[in-house]
Amino acid sequence: MSQAPERDRNARVTRSSSEFDQATALQSLEAALERAVPPESAWPSAIHSAMRYSLFAGGKRIRPLLVLAAGHAAGGSESDVLRFACAVELIHTYSLVHDDLPAMDDDDLRRGRPTCHKKYGEALAILAGDALLTRAFEWLTVGRPSENGTQRERRWKATALLASAAGTSGLIGGQAQDLESEGQEADPEILERIHAAKTGALLRASVCGGGLLGGADDAQIALLSQYAESIGLAFQIVDDVLDATGSSSQLGKTPGKDAATGKTTYVSVYGLDEARRQARALLDESLRVLRPFGAPASGLADLARRIVERES
Amino acid sequence: MSQAPERDRNARVTRSSSEFDQATALQSLEAALERAVPPESAWPSAIHSAMRYSLFAGGKRIRPLLVLAAGHAAGGSESDVLRFACAVELIHTYSLVHDDLPAMDDDDLRRGRPTCHKKYGEALAILAGDALLTRAFEWLTVGRPSENGTQRERRWKATALLASAAGTSGLIGGQAQDLESEGQEADPEILERIHAAKTGALLRASVCGGGLLGGADDAQIALLSQYAESIGLAFQIVDDVLDATGSSSQLGKTPGKDAATGKTTYVSVYGLDEARRQARALLDESLRVLRPFGAPASGLADLARRIVERES
Repeated sequence: MSQAPERDRNARVTRSSSEFDQATALQSLEAALERAVPPESAWPSAIHSAMRYSLFAGGKRIRPLLVLAAGHAAGGSESDVLRFACAVELIHTYSLVHDDLPAMDDDDLRRGRPTCHKKYGEALAILAGDALLTRAFEWLTVGRPSENGTQRERRWKATALLASAAGTSGLIGGQAQDLESEGQEADPEILERIHAAKTGALLRASVCGGGLLGGADDAQIALLSQYAESIGLAFQIVDDVLDATGSSSQLGKTPGKDAATGKTTYVSVYGLDEARRQARALLDESLRVLRPFGAPASGLADLARRIVERES
Repeated sequence: MSQAPERDRNARVTRSSSEFDQATALQSLEAALERAVPPESAWPSAIHSAMRYSLFAGGKRIRPLLVLAAGHAAGGSESDVLRFACAVELIHTYSLVHDDLPAMDDDDLRRGRPTCHKKYGEALAILAGDALLTRAFEWLTVGRPSENGTQRERRWKATALLASAAGTSGLIGGQAQDLESEGQEADPEILERIHAAKTGALLRASVCGGGLLGGADDAQIALLSQYAESIGLAFQIVDDVLDATGSSSQLGKTPGKDAATGKTTYVSVYGLDEARRQARALLDESLRVLRPFGAPASGLADLARRIVERES
C-alpha cells in the first residue's frame, strides 16, 4: 500500500495554481456517472432503466461540479473527488424522484420531460429513488486498494458528512417540514430552517466534502463552509423567484405552483424585489470568502454566479 | 489511538468459548436501536415519530440477532458489531415501510398494527423509509476515534457489503423483479433469483458482516456465507408456507395474499409438502456448516431453527 507523506502546503498550492476548467470537469463527471450506475442490460433491467432515465435527464450537475471545484480549490486532483461527486448527484437525483411522487409534490414534468413515476409508474419510481440513494453509499464504500490511510480517513469523514446532509437534519428533514407547512401562513423562521435543511445541507456537503477530499485544512474548510452557506440560501431564493416569474418552457417544470399551493417561499414572505436583492448580496458574500484561495477557486466563483444569475 | 496487535487465533477462541446469550443480546440491541434514531422531540418531529413507529413495532430482530450471533461465533465482542446490527435493522425496516406502500404491495397491516402509511399518510411513510435507509449509513460512518486501522478496514468492508445487499443486485432488485413477475406464471428459476436477492442478500450481509466485524478469517467467512445461503432460502420458503397456511392473527398481516394476487411462491411452484421438506433440509445443512465453530456458534444454530420452525 502506498504510504506517501502528507503533501505540504506549498506543494498543494503549486499543484492547483491554475484555474478550474469546468468543461473538462463536466466531461469527466458525465463519464464517471455513466460508470456509477449498472447498465440497463444488468438484471433487473427495469430498475436500472428508471435510475438512468432520471440520472441522465439533462440536469445541470451543479452539486457535483461544486464537489470538483472545491476539490480543485483545495489543491486536490480530479481522482480524489470524482466518486464523491457522483454520490452527491445520485442522492440529489433520488430526492427529486421521490419529491415528484403523487403523494409528495405530485409533479408531472421535470426538466421538460415526464417525471420518473409518469414514465415508469409509481412503484418503480419509488424503488428507483431508493436505488439511487443506496448506490451512492455503495459507490463510496467499495474498496480502493491503492488508497493510503490519510485518504481513507478523509473518505470516511466525507461519507459521514454526506449521510448526515441527506438525513433528517438535512434533505429529508427539510422535505418533511415543507410538507407539514404547506397551506399554512408563511413564517420566515420556519422558511429559513426548511431551506437550510432541504437545499443548504447537500450544497454544504458537496463543497466541504469536495474540499476535504481535495486536502483542505481546517481553516480552508471553515471558509468553504461559509461560501456554501451563502450560495445555499441564494440558491433557494432564486428558485422561489423563478417559480414566481418563470415560464414552463424556461423552467422545464410547472411554474406558479408555490403560490397555487399556498407554499411559504421567499417571494411570499419578502416580495420579489427584496428577494432578488438578498440573492445578490449573498453572491457578493460568497465571492468575498473565496479570495484567500486565489485562482484555484475560480470554479467555485463561477458556480456561485451561475446559481444566482440562472434563468431556469 | 490504540494500536493493539491483532488478536491471535487462540486468544479469539478463548474469548468466545461460551455460548451465545440471546436474551442479553436482544436487550443490548433494543437499547442500541433506541440510540440509533433521533428522539421524537428532535426537529422535525413527525418524521422521527414515523421512523420510530415502524422501527419499534414488535419486529423479531432476526437480522440484527444474526449479526450479533455471527460476531460472537467469530470471537468478537458485542461492541464490535452492535452498530452494524442496528444498521441492518434500519435497512430491513425501511424496506418493509416502502414495500407496504399503496403503489407497491398495498398492505394495511404489519405485525398486527396499521402500516406506516396507514398511520402517517403516504408522503411521510415514503420519507420515513428514506430516512431509515439514510440513517443506517450515517450510523455506520460517524467517527469512532478509538478504532484502530484493522477495525476501520473491517468497518469499510462490512459497510460496502451491506450497501451492496441493499442495492439493485439485492433487496431493491428482488422487489423490482417481484413486482414485474406478479400475475405471471410461476417460473422456478426467476423465483429463486427473486428470493436470493430480496431475502437472501440482506441475511448474508448480516451474517458475513457480523462475522467480519467480529474478526472472522477468510475460511470462517466462507462457512458463514454457506450458512447464510441455506437459512436465506429456508426463510423465504417458510414465509411462503405461512402465507398459504397461517391465520391473520398469527401473522399480524393479511394471509392468502400471494395466491390472491397470483404471485410466484415456493408453494405455488412445488406444493406445500415439498416446500416444507426443502426448508427442513436447508436447516440441517445450515447446522452442519456451523460445526467447526463449536459452542460459540450456538446463537446461529438457534436462529436457524427459529427461522424454520416459526409460526409467524
